Amino acid sequence: MGSLLIKNGEIVSPLDCTFQDIYIEDGKIAALGKDLDVSADRVLDAAGQYVLPGGIDVHTHLDMPFMGEVSADDFESGTAAAMAGGTTSIIDYIVPGKGQSLLEALATWKSKAKTAVADYGFHMAVTWYSDQVAREMAVCVREEGIPSFKAFLAYKDAIMVNDEELVGLLKCSRELNALIMAHCENGEIVAELQEKLFAEGKVEPKYHALSRPSYAEGESAFRLASLARAIGVPAYFVHMSCAESTRVLVEARAQGMDIYGETCPQYLLLDDSVYDKPDFLGAAYVMSPPIRPKGHAESLWGAIRAGQIQVVGTDHCPFNLKGQKELGRDDFRKIPNGAAGIEDRLKLLYTYGVMKGRITINQMVAITSTNPAKIFGMYPQKGSITVGADADLVIWQPDGEGTISAMTHYHRVDTSIFEGYRTVGAPAVVIANGRVQCEDGKLMVEPGAGRFIPRKLTV
Amino acid sequence: MGSLLIKNGEIVSPLDCTFQDIYIEDGKIAALGKDLDVSADRVLDAAGQYVLPGGIDVHTHLDMPFMGEVSADDFESGTAAAMAGGTTSIIDYIVPGKGQSLLEALATWKSKAKTAVADYGFHMAVTWYSDQVAREMAVCVREEGIPSFKAFLAYKDAIMVNDEELVGLLKCSRELNALIMAHCENGEIVAELQEKLFAEGKVEPKYHALSRPSYAEGESAFRLASLARAIGVPAYFVHMSCAESTRVLVEARAQGMDIYGETCPQYLLLDDSVYDKPDFLGAAYVMSPPIRPKGHAESLWGAIRAGQIQVVGTDHCPFNLKGQKELGRDDFRKIPNGAAGIEDRLKLLYTYGVMKGRITINQMVAITSTNPAKIFGMYPQKGSITVGADADLVIWQPDGEGTISAMTHYHRVDTSIFEGYRTVGAPAVVIANGRVQCEDGKLMVEPGAGRFIPRKLTV
Amino acid sequence: MGSLLIKNGEIVSPLDCTFQDIYIEDGKIAALGKDLDVSADRVLDAAGQYVLPGGIDVHTHLDMPFMGEVSADDFESGTAAAMAGGTTSIIDYIVPGKGQSLLEALATWKSKAKTAVADYGFHMAVTWYSDQVAREMAVCVREEGIPSFKAFLAYKDAIMVNDEELVGLLKCSRELNALIMAHCENGEIVAELQEKLFAEGKVEPKYHALSRPSYAEGESAFRLASLARAIGVPAYFVHMSCAESTRVLVEARAQGMDIYGETCPQYLLLDDSVYDKPDFLGAAYVMSPPIRPKGHAESLWGAIRAGQIQVVGTDHCPFNLKGQKELGRDDFRKIPNGAAGIEDRLKLLYTYGVMKGRITINQMVAITSTNPAKIFGMYPQKGSITVGADADLVIWQPDGEGTISAMTHYHRVDTSIFEGYRTVGAPAVVIANGRVQCEDGKLMVEPGAGRFIPRKLTV
Amino acid sequence: MGSLLIKNGEIVSPLDCTFQDIYIEDGKIAALGKDLDVSADRVLDAAGQYVLPGGIDVHTHLDMPFMGEVSADDFESGTAAAMAGGTTSIIDYIVPGKGQSLLEALATWKSKAKTAVADYGFHMAVTWYSDQVAREMAVCVREEGIPSFKAFLAYKDAIMVNDEELVGLLKCSRELNALIMAHCENGEIVAELQEKLFAEGKVEPKYHALSRPSYAEGESAFRLASLARAIGVPAYFVHMSCAESTRVLVEARAQGMDIYGETCPQYLLLDDSVYDKPDFLGAAYVMSPPIRPKGHAESLWGAIRAGQIQVVGTDHCPFNLKGQKELGRDDFRKIPNGAAGIEDRLKLLYTYGVMKGRITINQMVAITSTNPAKIFGMYPQKGSITVGADADLVIWQPDGEGTISAMTHYHRVDTSIFEGYRTVGAPAVVIANGRVQCEDGKLMVEPGAGRFIPRKLTV
Repeated sequence: MGSLLIKNGEIVSPLDCTFQDIYIEDGKIAALGKDLDVSADRVLDAAGQYVLPGGIDVHTHLDMPFMGEVSADDFESGTAAAMAGGTTSIIDYIVPGKGQSLLEALATWKSKAKTAVADYGFHMAVTWYSDQVAREMAVCVREEGIPSFKAFLAYKDAIMVNDEELVGLLKCSRELNALIMAHCENGEIVAELQEKLFAEGKVEPKYHALSRPSYAEGESAFRLASLARAIGVPAYFVHMSCAESTRVLVEARAQGMDIYGETCPQYLLLDDSVYDKPDFLGAAYVMSPPIRPKGHAESLWGAIRAGQIQVVGTDHCPFNLKGQKELGRDDFRKIPNGAAGIEDRLKLLYTYGVMKGRITINQMVAITSTNPAKIFGMYPQKGSITVGADADLVIWQPDGEGTISAMTHYHRVDTSIFEGYRTVGAPAVVIANGRVQCEDGKLMVEPGAGRFIPRKLTV
Repeated sequence: MGSLLIKNGEIVSPLDCTFQDIYIEDGKIAALGKDLDVSADRVLDAAGQYVLPGGIDVHTHLDMPFMGEVSADDFESGTAAAMAGGTTSIIDYIVPGKGQSLLEALATWKSKAKTAVADYGFHMAVTWYSDQVAREMAVCVREEGIPSFKAFLAYKDAIMVNDEELVGLLKCSRELNALIMAHCENGEIVAELQEKLFAEGKVEPKYHALSRPSYAEGESAFRLASLARAIGVPAYFVHMSCAESTRVLVEARAQGMDIYGETCPQYLLLDDSVYDKPDFLGAAYVMSPPIRPKGHAESLWGAIRAGQIQVVGTDHCPFNLKGQKELGRDDFRKIPNGAAGIEDRLKLLYTYGVMKGRITINQMVAITSTNPAKIFGMYPQKGSITVGADADLVIWQPDGEGTISAMTHYHRVDTSIFEGYRTVGAPAVVIANGRVQCEDGKLMVEPGAGRFIPRKLTV
Repeated sequence: MGSLLIKNGEIVSPLDCTFQDIYIEDGKIAALGKDLDVSADRVLDAAGQYVLPGGIDVHTHLDMPFMGEVSADDFESGTAAAMAGGTTSIIDYIVPGKGQSLLEALATWKSKAKTAVADYGFHMAVTWYSDQVAREMAVCVREEGIPSFKAFLAYKDAIMVNDEELVGLLKCSRELNALIMAHCENGEIVAELQEKLFAEGKVEPKYHALSRPSYAEGESAFRLASLARAIGVPAYFVHMSCAESTRVLVEARAQGMDIYGETCPQYLLLDDSVYDKPDFLGAAYVMSPPIRPKGHAESLWGAIRAGQIQVVGTDHCPFNLKGQKELGRDDFRKIPNGAAGIEDRLKLLYTYGVMKGRITINQMVAITSTNPAKIFGMYPQKGSITVGADADLVIWQPDGEGTISAMTHYHRVDTSIFEGYRTVGAPAVVIANGRVQCEDGKLMVEPGAGRFIPRKLTV
Repeated sequence: MGSLLIKNGEIVSPLDCTFQDIYIEDGKIAALGKDLDVSADRVLDAAGQYVLPGGIDVHTHLDMPFMGEVSADDFESGTAAAMAGGTTSIIDYIVPGKGQSLLEALATWKSKAKTAVADYGFHMAVTWYSDQVAREMAVCVREEGIPSFKAFLAYKDAIMVNDEELVGLLKCSRELNALIMAHCENGEIVAELQEKLFAEGKVEPKYHALSRPSYAEGESAFRLASLARAIGVPAYFVHMSCAESTRVLVEARAQGMDIYGETCPQYLLLDDSVYDKPDFLGAAYVMSPPIRPKGHAESLWGAIRAGQIQVVGTDHCPFNLKGQKELGRDDFRKIPNGAAGIEDRLKLLYTYGVMKGRITINQMVAITSTNPAKIFGMYPQKGSITVGADADLVIWQPDGEGTISAMTHYHRVDTSIFEGYRTVGAPAVVIANGRVQCEDGKLMVEPGAGRFIPRKLTV
């Protein structure tokens, strides 16, 4: 691993844009400054280009068993697609079964992750609660570098936790200085509406969306915020999709609460007309929460611009239409939930966020890299272009058009929910730990090169 | 039971005030009109006075076992105090234990109620849910004239139902055309804070209030409204005490939902400084929800004025300071919850509502009589001064001052939470089923004269 | 004028439905009761039908000069159309020019109204403010029976009043016990956007809507509510069209303020896709406020159901497409603003409100008759089916379908904004002051029969 | 001006805290890094201390004629007090009279500012609007380095602008890429209530507060936000004091609007009980907006924590109780409005913000230095500890207690609104443009050393 010098680029941080050279040695940023007088094994000229801290996607499900199927990208293909899109680190979810030991599940995920090409961390999902779970959470935080735990407030009779369990979890997080994240949808409401719709013969993909109304997300978010307030801990809403939960977030934060919010490109760019696609194509968009009616996306964009939503992840969890999604052809409840996006995130945010004037390039860096790193305890190792940080960098070419398509993406899945979306800008060079991983769209990744990043919360 | 003629009074309905005479025969209103040309056994001159439909208190707990004690008023003393205050009908709560048959509890309450001096109905609390409960709810509605059911969202590990049970209850209400009422406080939050405060050595009455923050009421109300929306049924919030649940009510209604709200005089008139009273006197105000900080009452008054809160009940559930409340001298969690108010309701609303310009006399009739009758299926038999209705009437003397005191009230309890409150106006004559029950403050009631009023919802 | 007996009908009030016969003599209701034992010149059997108090439309512009044209219905044709639709009274707006004497304008309107077939009152618009105006307002209230005044917060450089004038007006209303009504749209915003759009070559009818965004209505409503709060007076929002002003109304009322709201059928039933109609047909929908995007109507329905919007009027102010609307073919700013609706109101509310379950038949009576009568000082003479009230009644046939069309309506205008709308139910017989005015769709009205109704506020 | 080296300090930015040495040469930061290997004329050891970017107070009124008096601090004494408190730059308001040339007023202020000891910029107040004003605004922006303009929405008949003028101003700002700031209080409401209260004989200082209710601030903020939305420009609320305007800010931002908010320590720390002080001492707190009732401050703190209020200034505008404030002894309307605070800002925010856990030290830097610099176009020259920035630095001693008092402050005024307030932490050394200005509480400032900082907006 030789040295690298990036010259003439415009470095973007959440705070500002500055013209500085970056000298990289041993996988880390060794020097920063104007016209650095240093020689390097390779010199990259970034004139006319931005230099961004490598993207961090804190919401992925690689090699994930769900609803009887396994998500189509494993750690190798998933992180490779991430790299291609400028995302150099991920945090993936370990999801133990109800009653399963967290540490046992951790062992399984460690094994899955061995082929990762990009650095990764883990969140631990908590799908049940007991003294054992509490003890294992402590091990996760103190010995395993896993200080973030996710509760599902949906998926009744599967991985949902009830309020008593959730309170236990929040109290445990208080002791461990850990962060509780939640999938906010009211599982009782969803179960009830699923059953009702199916009983009425409503089996097509669009009923998936109708069984999960946005107010059920709002209710769940408000409940979590209220419980977190009582216990005196922060909380994190994953994959927010709608105006209702955004309002909860905005109001809770304005009352001084430390609630963090995450959304995903699909909620920012699509609307529920996707479920009307013919030939079962709507199934590609079956995910939870579902794509919402027109109007909700504007709330999410507004909250990002206002700094109220801090993170844009992807919830990358692809399933093939053929052989996987089609299992639910006669019952929307059986369509595996999820879609791909890990590769597309930066391009979409740049094109539809920065270029449309909805956010600044600084905000793009904040929501895709710096904020995730800070909230989840990887900062300043990740998410920061400063001396001593990991040399995870994206040289971003601000012009040049492209089109997203399942024909060309690195995702290992047969559809793209952004099929045909035009993009502007792209990663010219993606560097991880000081090594070029992708250049002009060509991947040069190495299975197993990704390291596990132990994390510790400081926020 | 002879005939009665009330002449020259100003009859108040929710809609207007009109000067008409009222002729009563066989316990019912037989004729209405200006200068009725009819003779009667007794003629009452109501010149300069209002004539109101008899008050209906839909929230009482007479002879109620709770927290190891039994509330201090039984059906005889409680309904007598009600009569003295102008309330001629009540609806009392049957509260079965967890696992107990609803019908068995009903039998017990039927027996308790035999001595009632005023007409009464029952609400059934549902403290657990099962197929048996569902079947017994159907019996209550179809055979017993009990179409309203209450869920406690507080009192964890005692009578609280969880969300799954609540959903069952709401669905059952949809089938039966019944109304679900709820005590909205988040039981998880309360349990958590009770334990925490007590562990910190905070044992005095004021910690009762601090263990039940207003946001826990707001959360619970929002959750219920969301579930009711999903199931497609109305819901009713009992004893609302704060700005947060009021906001939930107002917003849910403005979205077209049929949510009804009830508050009580103590939440309209007191603030949480009552808990600072010396010598354990704060215990008299220990009830759930607790008395709130200054400011909340204004929200409740505003919502009443706007027609968004429809009912003012009392949650009458008195416990003596001596021998009952004092059981919690060293642990606020053991103070029996509740206070008296059934006798004071009309005077307080007239004095602090009508005379202060917060509500009109028409609104006073709406919230104390007509709305309760309509919402709970007693209209127009009760709550209405029209031909054919039960002759339950209050001739209201609009001036004349008084003072509320435990020394003089008919409540059978050793304290009054309104001790020393000045009042203006009072019932001059209270008539129930055509019989004078109280005149110039003197009771002429008859134990057992009260009839059970079977109800059927039409709203 | 002989006597009339209506038998077997179901009388609807805001409070309830009762089966009573109605006996009419000398134009007034003389007796009410079950099975009235009385003979009459004519007996109408209303079995299977509702009997409603005659509709009151408190927002009309008959024979109204505006934007260089005069509205197409005069008092004769307008009130005849009203009668055909079950509306037996109107309140029309006198609109003096800036600087014009209010009393002079009143004289003009008195003259216009001589041909009215239905009873009418006047609101006075106040388009400027001075000591003279204040004096003339006092005359209107004290001598002329006109206690309601309207301010336009839109129409800059024409009839708009500024905030200083508005404050004067509100203070004057406090002294006179009058009610200030306002057209809430921010005139500065509208002027600015009109100019900007036109400058960009955007001249078609749809830009009318885009020049008047809903937030400009919200701003204006909030401003008025704030000023009214400071001055200590009630206020009334005319023709509310959107979610923003509805939120202002709901929140102000929940804070205890006496703000009243009115909307119109066009805002409840149409959406802004009407402006996309070809061949300049969108011009028929050019009115202010404009028809809003989908979603706003739901807010209005919700607020009606919750009792927060009290009145549905029509803002009846028709202009012919030919010869009038087409004056703005090249400039949306020149299209005369307004449309017809006076005849359609009850049918539309019954069909799309009552039959759809959005409101009850009692609420329909409240918003179309009783509330307007009460708010504007005509109650119980109008808006009430009680002994002594004017015999203005509609026997409503609850079934039977129809279709609204400019081909068949009594409105004297060449288009209907509800063209093709299906209706259910219709007035079978319309009675005003004891005389049948319309039977089975056939008008029997008499020009000049309408009387001026002097009003006095009591609310 | 020699070189300076600050070693071992913990540098605080809005983003993070890092341990780096700072080397200063020629008044600018020349190098940054761990263990800098450089020699300097003076070395300061900042071990155990924070190093903050010099405070920027963007809301001051020095040598300001107002209400017949002149504020008690001139540019020399005011900026000296600022320095003592760790504020190394200010932006002061030029306030031309109605009808006065902006450039003429600018000349006056340039002359006043000659004695400033700290760097300064100017905002221009716009108290009237015309073509001349628009032309002079262009000169301010393009030639004078003044790109921020303030409108007073209060002070009717004095310096208030009406909505038409405000729209002109906003449109002008759009063309010039300038920022409109506003004092949000509804001047009509204030004028009305002042007159009313005074007429009722209510003349004491506390009526100042009652004449300026918080809802009048909310109204005004909402109006400005709505107009800015229509014109398509950002806006900035100065000295926010209450929950109502905070809600407007939070909601507008969540809708994607670029509204910025500023508050001041007095609104964060005091409540309206100050107006009850005896002996006319309440007059010291007479400022506009007034100090609010308990509860409002929590809204402001919450919005700061959530990043929704970006700036804490002081509105420093002191008047002596003797000889100035006492002019309004018999009429609260004549008490000169304003108080001192420029010296206390950082200490108060550190003590009551950072030490209480309401904000982080990073947020303290953001709101007192970096955000003001960015919003007002001084970044990264000011507000940033980066190579090339002005060496304006505060070495902050995080412990050590003190007490604020008029006896000891550098403010040239006879009272302190924070009299007796305990503080923790203080500036150990204050450096401006590379020179030590204050060390251990001893000032070493030089009249006239302050430079005018021309600004240009980039946000």
